[in-house]
Amino acid sequence: MTWADGCLKLIDQRKLPSHLEVVECRTYKEVADAIRTMKVRGAPAIGATAAFGVALGALEHRHATREEFVSAMQIISKELAATRPTAVNLFWALERMEKVVESKQTEPVPSIVDALIQEAEAIATEDIETCKQIGAAGALLIADGDGVLTICNAGALATVDYGTALGVVRAANDVGKDFHVYTAETRPFLQGARLTAWELVQEGIPATLITDNMAGWLMQQGRVQVVIVGADRIAGNGDTANKIGTYTFAVLAHHHQVPFYVAAPLSTVDLSLESGKQIPIEERSPEEVTHLCGQRIAPAGIGVYNPAFDVTPAELISGIITEAGIIRAPFAANLAKVFRTS
Amino acid sequence: MTWADGCLKLIDQRKLPSHLEVVECRTYKEVADAIRTMKVRGAPAIGATAAFGVALGALEHRHATREEFVSAMQIISKELAATRPTAVNLFWALERMEKVVESKQTEPVPSIVDALIQEAEAIATEDIETCKQIGAAGALLIADGDGVLTICNAGALATVDYGTALGVVRAANDVGKDFHVYTAETRPFLQGARLTAWELVQEGIPATLITDNMAGWLMQQGRVQVVIVGADRIAGNGDTANKIGTYTFAVLAHHHQVPFYVAAPLSTVDLSLESGKQIPIEERSPEEVTHLCGQRIAPAGIGVYNPAFDVTPAELISGIITEAGIIRAPFAANLAKVFRTS
Repeated sequence: MTWADGCLKLIDQRKLPSHLEVVECRTYKEVADAIRTMKVRGAPAIGATAAFGVALGALEHRHATREEFVSAMQIISKELAATRPTAVNLFWALERMEKVVESKQTEPVPSIVDALIQEAEAIATEDIETCKQIGAAGALLIADGDGVLTICNAGALATVDYGTALGVVRAANDVGKDFHVYTAETRPFLQGARLTAWELVQEGIPATLITDNMAGWLMQQGRVQVVIVGADRIAGNGDTANKIGTYTFAVLAHHHQVPFYVAAPLSTVDLSLESGKQIPIEERSPEEVTHLCGQRIAPAGIGVYNPAFDVTPAELISGIITEAGIIRAPFAANLAKVFRTS
Repeated sequence: MTWADGCLKLIDQRKLPSHLEVVECRTYKEVADAIRTMKVRGAPAIGATAAFGVALGALEHRHATREEFVSAMQIISKELAATRPTAVNLFWALERMEKVVESKQTEPVPSIVDALIQEAEAIATEDIETCKQIGAAGALLIADGDGVLTICNAGALATVDYGTALGVVRAANDVGKDFHVYTAETRPFLQGARLTAWELVQEGIPATLITDNMAGWLMQQGRVQVVIVGADRIAGNGDTANKIGTYTFAVLAHHHQVPFYVAAPLSTVDLSLESGKQIPIEERSPEEVTHLCGQRIAPAGIGVYNPAFDVTPAELISGIITEAGIIRAPFAANLAKVFRTS
């Protein structure tokens, strides 16, 4: 994503890989729509996008009185928060923006607007730096000859740039490791087939696309040495919500004694939740499952279950790769420690 | 499938559920093409279809000399055998047909042709009866309130009629059991979304479609009490080749302590193979994964792995539901026993 002169430019991720279309958002409502309709997705990307949404909302109200402005910002924040429920980075970014309004509320509106734009820019800049730190920490987990399995897209498209799980892959590639990536297509939205495959082809990293149901067989044949996935929300005990299918991969990895890593910035950790049971799981429309490329594939009358995420219990996770290094079990204690010192 | 007056009528399974189109085969080459291109699929259906293919080939050569006829039948059998490699029912049915030619080789050609047609009809009739016996044996495994998970299509479309895994579901429904079926869409060919969902809607059996990667989460939530799948080939030790994804479901079932059953006729058992390691696994074209509804979903340049089947080791299988009852571990001994007595 890029930001300049009150315009946020996003790649429309629904159109990739066949069309590289850029969406221009000039109002906070356009930003809310982009998140809701998944033009932009990926937990860190959603967070930064929402922050720019607040900045755009602030610009839209720059001629308001201070009272009107503060009240408008609350409404805007609420509307952006209602776009998607699971990725905590959305709420984390909105909270950072709310704190700016709070701390500047005695200043003139134009100063608050400036401060909000600066904060959104800071969130975006920090996200890139964070991804590179995650990459550097995680690259050590990939050895020459390894098969690396991932799901969904935790790449440059899912963040401001570089990526989390794919940031690890990028960093390992940058230091000359010789390995092979397996990207699971990730039904129903096909982020793996459309987005991760696209990023890997762009980078020239050797990669193979599989359908999600091939993961077990791939592991059975000894072709996967490490699984690395992103995260949408990590509870205080390490339980991790991520794209639907992640839990299945974690069980498969456990069965085949393959290490299973989560790569995510600390902004994805939600210490307010004791366990993954408390993470709200978004259910999306049945049409995502019953229709493909605009065509109906399933018969009318069939029921559909379409949770967008699942929760992997901490005991199936080998480690969480963060900008503060790799966090391992016991997760509750070690996550708390990182937050005390960070 | 229906057979009358030298014409085999098949539902074109690639067109379902949006179009119910019937393919008419009047030559053995049309039958070979129907199997190869998956107009017809499902191990028992492939077997019966191939038998009718031989019958059509015989009719095409009914005016040949006996020598020409026998030689033509060998070529036809070889061509039909080369259509798909994994489902053993294909070779089993062709062998039955070859034995007819062998046993009748001193008779006039028209008599051999008649005998071949009768044998193909017998294979088809027996298949329906076998499926009903499988259904009756397996129905006892489904209890009121159960969630039953299946993959691919092991229904009426995969057999001559009634189905194997779906035959069990049908039989349980017929005796008034109150349960819910989860059908996994089964990428890349979507047999679950297109065919199983269609059969379940037609029968009025309560059912929900999921994407393949939702199976783990479904089990984690306690919504699956039994997994029932079909089979394409069962080795002498019970290892079972079935649609890709089956092995993943077996691992998931094991992890969640959910019983995992295979439903298949004894014609699917290949006692010539000691273990599943010897089962040839068909790999199909990359386009099945990279394209959907005629549209490219993955970028050019990405590698693709597309095995059509995987092998579930016997130790993950609770039982094999056959026309001779439910066979349990030790599979090698118990399968051998069934074949000695049958």
